[in-house]
Amino acid sequence: MRISELADTTGVSVATIKYYVREGLLSPGRKLSERLADYDDQHVRRLRLLRVLRDVGSVPVGALKALVDATQDRRASVHDMFGRACDALRTETAVPEVPDEHTRALADQIVARAGWTKVRPDAPERDRLAGIIKVILDSGLPTDPEGAATYLPLVDAIAAYDLDQIDDTRDREAMMEQMVLGQVVLGEFLLSLRRLAHEHHSALRFAGRR
Amino acid sequence: MRISELADTTGVSVATIKYYVREGLLSPGRKLSERLADYDDQHVRRLRLLRVLRDVGSVPVGALKALVDATQDRRASVHDMFGRACDALRTETAVPEVPDEHTRALADQIVARAGWTKVRPDAPERDRLAGIIKVILDSGLPTDPEGAATYLPLVDAIAAYDLDQIDDTRDREAMMEQMVLGQVVLGEFLLSLRRLAHEHHSALRFAGRR
Repeated sequence: MRISELADTTGVSVATIKYYVREGLLSPGRKLSERLADYDDQHVRRLRLLRVLRDVGSVPVGALKALVDATQDRRASVHDMFGRACDALRTETAVPEVPDEHTRALADQIVARAGWTKVRPDAPERDRLAGIIKVILDSGLPTDPEGAATYLPLVDAIAAYDLDQIDDTRDREAMMEQMVLGQVVLGEFLLSLRRLAHEHHSALRFAGRR
Repeated sequence: MRISELADTTGVSVATIKYYVREGLLSPGRKLSERLADYDDQHVRRLRLLRVLRDVGSVPVGALKALVDATQDRRASVHDMFGRACDALRTETAVPEVPDEHTRALADQIVARAGWTKVRPDAPERDRLAGIIKVILDSGLPTDPEGAATYLPLVDAIAAYDLDQIDDTRDREAMMEQMVLGQVVLGEFLLSLRRLAHEHHSALRFAGRR
């Protein structure tokens, strides 16, 4: 198909498509002549993925490039590819960048307690978890020392289900698509459901309380 | 304490403290003289809350004001107060603002299936969930029609636990603090744990797959 048809099909503007090709996020179309190129279903699929990541995940172009590079590096296992995608997709918030030893130790304890033995010792997400723990502790609010015992098996079940959705008979590109959509869109889905559940449980507990 | 000491204690600058007072987010200190005011623990607590919301939740000032107003409106039940807080704290993403009837019906079915009967029929979060469902459907990726059956009890258990953390023997202000921190900071905590669990489960499934 022509670039204008590709734009209509995917809802991504011609200017943005050209930008993605220049940035290496989308392979160029097959040249038909000096000014015409032909695009196919692979392009449609990639553009849909880029659009979702940009719209829902607010993923910056640098991170999108890291995702595409990870897909194309065939020496990396699918797991390594996912690891690089996870690192690229970490959302930026203002939690402390270099957590102190105490909160980092607490984060490591949580990961160990959850039984997530396969998480890299230097995974950036460990520092991020430590930063969030620091915010919770600094807030001075009461915390339940046994809270992790309730949360961890629930989160583990959610994550195992998310990964079960990835069809490993498909090619790397398709697996990556399923994986990043799971990270970004199902993450939003989960938080939205949680807000709805909060409203329900708040009504049960506090509708009569002033 | 003086305003400079308040700034040191909370890590919020004097200029920002004055701004919060002007915007009605923080009550003025007790006047000692024309140029001096005295601040107490209530001010420290409120500033810590505002800082966490701004840093971790990126909550804009308009939403902070809605939270404070909801706390101070004593005609509203604690549940109504929480509902207004939830509406104010909804994060902005580029999901469609006005979902179509089909996805909105799917969102309502999910809420009904979860048994969250207390969610207002016009809760803005229903539209938001519908918007996320639309993104998932538009992505063209395979979806598991029975996925909700796995997710919903897990999310319900998480939300019930979150609400159990709120100490209802405390005053409205303290309950609101616990509630918004639960929404914002525990939401980040949950997503961070989920990313760690994804890394673990991805290693178990895909470490040998190329």
